[in-house]
Amino acid sequence: MLRLSSFFLLAGVLSAAPCDLVVSARYIVTMNGQHRVIRNGAVAIRGERIVGVGTRADIDRDWQPKKRIDRLNAIVSPGLINTHTHAAMSLFRGIADDLKLQDWLNSFIFPAEAKNVSADFVRWGTRLACLEMLLSGTTTFTDMYYFEDVVAETAKEAGMRGVLGETVIGFPVADAKTPADALKYTEKFLARFHNDPLVVPAVAPHALYTNSDETLKAARTLANKYNAPLLIHLSETRKENDDNQAKRHQSPTQTLNSIGLFVGRTVAAHCVWVDAIDMGILKQKNVGVAHCPSCIMKLASGAAPVVEMLRRGIPAGVGTDGPAGSNNDFDLMEEADLAAKLQKLIRNDPEVLPASQAFEMATMGGARVLGLEKEIGSLETGKRADLITIDLDAPNAVPMYDVYSQLVYALKGSNVLDVVVNGREIVRDRRVLTLDQPAVIAKAREYGLKVAQSVQQKH
Amino acid sequence: MLRLSSFFLLAGVLSAAPCDLVVSARYIVTMNGQHRVIRNGAVAIRGERIVGVGTRADIDRDWQPKKRIDRLNAIVSPGLINTHTHAAMSLFRGIADDLKLQDWLNSFIFPAEAKNVSADFVRWGTRLACLEMLLSGTTTFTDMYYFEDVVAETAKEAGMRGVLGETVIGFPVADAKTPADALKYTEKFLARFHNDPLVVPAVAPHALYTNSDETLKAARTLANKYNAPLLIHLSETRKENDDNQAKRHQSPTQTLNSIGLFVGRTVAAHCVWVDAIDMGILKQKNVGVAHCPSCIMKLASGAAPVVEMLRRGIPAGVGTDGPAGSNNDFDLMEEADLAAKLQKLIRNDPEVLPASQAFEMATMGGARVLGLEKEIGSLETGKRADLITIDLDAPNAVPMYDVYSQLVYALKGSNVLDVVVNGREIVRDRRVLTLDQPAVIAKAREYGLKVAQSVQQKH
Repeated sequence: MLRLSSFFLLAGVLSAAPCDLVVSARYIVTMNGQHRVIRNGAVAIRGERIVGVGTRADIDRDWQPKKRIDRLNAIVSPGLINTHTHAAMSLFRGIADDLKLQDWLNSFIFPAEAKNVSADFVRWGTRLACLEMLLSGTTTFTDMYYFEDVVAETAKEAGMRGVLGETVIGFPVADAKTPADALKYTEKFLARFHNDPLVVPAVAPHALYTNSDETLKAARTLANKYNAPLLIHLSETRKENDDNQAKRHQSPTQTLNSIGLFVGRTVAAHCVWVDAIDMGILKQKNVGVAHCPSCIMKLASGAAPVVEMLRRGIPAGVGTDGPAGSNNDFDLMEEADLAAKLQKLIRNDPEVLPASQAFEMATMGGARVLGLEKEIGSLETGKRADLITIDLDAPNAVPMYDVYSQLVYALKGSNVLDVVVNGREIVRDRRVLTLDQPAVIAKAREYGLKVAQSVQQKH
Repeated sequence: MLRLSSFFLLAGVLSAAPCDLVVSARYIVTMNGQHRVIRNGAVAIRGERIVGVGTRADIDRDWQPKKRIDRLNAIVSPGLINTHTHAAMSLFRGIADDLKLQDWLNSFIFPAEAKNVSADFVRWGTRLACLEMLLSGTTTFTDMYYFEDVVAETAKEAGMRGVLGETVIGFPVADAKTPADALKYTEKFLARFHNDPLVVPAVAPHALYTNSDETLKAARTLANKYNAPLLIHLSETRKENDDNQAKRHQSPTQTLNSIGLFVGRTVAAHCVWVDAIDMGILKQKNVGVAHCPSCIMKLASGAAPVVEMLRRGIPAGVGTDGPAGSNNDFDLMEEADLAAKLQKLIRNDPEVLPASQAFEMATMGGARVLGLEKEIGSLETGKRADLITIDLDAPNAVPMYDVYSQLVYALKGSNVLDVVVNGREIVRDRRVLTLDQPAVIAKAREYGLKVAQSVQQKH
């Protein structure tokens, strides 16, 4: 018997394959198709990918890691996916709140952008945003802004995953005089970041009402040439719908569909004012919806029909939107919480959008929105190793009766301890390893003073 | 000249009066009548009270403290005031989410309470709640639960201020067989904590629909005998209104008014379904309203007419409600944020309930609700020294264009660094000095297992 057990032990050690990192914790929330939760589980990582997910005993038997992160009282979850933001606007955080959307844009944001946005501004603003996103558990962000090559460089510097597109808009901006210039910029951008392990380059026409049909069609053609996703704002306000009805006698969704914009992967932000016909189109074209509850509440845009979109099988995730006026932070845990609460309120039904579905929106749902469901969004063998650990040794984390309830309604971004993106440890014990936090904060303050001097202040 | 300046210097030192504590920071948000914000300011404290508020230079000239808290990049603000909760329900955190209110109460909460609530349960549950409240900046909480003497003992142990009332309800509960028993308990409680520096004892009939008119009248009489506030739930759901209409052909507010319940300081939680006549009564009787946005969204109760209540001058604050099903945390910064966003959405106007007004609800507004506006809620000479410091050296805290915007829309409970209550330092650098956090967390886990075994689980 002794000999036999020694044989098995030896076989066990011999059969344990080398890997780079094992992350273990009390709970592994996989967000796989069965929503499997593993008690006392672990995830094994080799290179950029997950090679094993199981009980800690199984993973320890099968894998010999170079390094370990063992968190006794914690959850390991897929990294969170922010499906819509404008990261560099962090430097305009709260510059003009409690205003109507058009006042906010025309009197504050557009002038502030015209006077301040530069490559340097975008670099520091994106660094600031990456710090905040990483510290609150986001591993992938979806961005539309200017100097998007700088956003991409900064995402890579931070070690974050990004689906990034240069904004194409029908007026002159800091780095493009015309939409045609912006599309030229975009083509270079698509070529430069093609096949990047972290950056998915995208094409980002701002919206239907800020671009000509020709620009929109050219954007789609360009996206399809590089097999890139297209990012756009859609039906954010009632006014946007009313104006399009008056002009074209159809909804913005119908118009975009009629010009072929949805032929290819599309991420539509907001979709607050979509009706049954619109949702039929979104479903048919598999358009992904970025739902941003903080933003649409704060700007009083309305409440999107998220429950109905999910019921129809339209891919839907959550986003923070930009932090200037429409949020003002990058905390995706808060957006998942708010998504659930907002739908309950407007549907007059506390049973809709339960916690597990809200957390799905922040993970696998977001991956589906971006067309990255085979790469990220869940902890499964073969996927990119994007994961976070969330502390359960905190007053707001105990007791725990349901792990999804806890994640969505009780735990906060500030409970996030560690972040791994693409197999690389980016945050350890609440410290970002890739960026110089004090330098970024100092620079943000410096920009704050400069911006304040350059534009009218609300107060 | 030398002699003369030496004379003034000497006079300055001589005239500096002794005090116990000076807290200084980049910004002092006083929340006084003029909403004065002092740059590079300080607050001087002697004993339990504030003795000076001004620039750091002025305070340093006038006061010689035994101890200092100097925070370069921080805000000093009044401690936050939670106007409605059931603290010990922390031990039921998330036990049954995403359910209809009546299912939640009858199938989960009432059975769970019947099987688990004891003096020991309330002591540990309240300790857990106090940890979470203190760490997120709350210095005063308003509580209705059972074994309220234990809640009061625990509040004092934690060093928190509490307006606390034993729940009086028309069915047998753990520590009272009848409402009459609960009122007897309450009278002892009122006598015991009369004139306590931290505890304001209250009378807390649960609601109109769970008590007889006789009990409600007796509760009011008892409250007035001891000059104590009365706490009650009011018009939380449409059903509550509909039932009362059917039975009495009037609103719950009208009924309570007709039986004289509002003759004396009253704190009414929720007031979701109050109409113009009801609001006229609330204003006339100076009833304070505890608005709990997370709760009413999560349970789909509706959205309270907060903007209209504030316009009429009805005192209104924010509350978290209990963490079992209706929230599930004690983060008041989040409630202030959500209060602003929810009103914008339902009023279809982003200009309503601006950040400064939302922060007022969490501070002076809450003080007015509780009838404590002369004691707490703002940083003014003569008031109780209840204050917090909030870190501005964090990625989500920079840049800052407007201090109220930052407080309400960008800063989180987790940015709170220090807490002083009644002149005593209770939290220092995110560590609670009065409670044994690891022991409380361990006990909460233990109770979690016990509770889970005792009741049906949703999943």
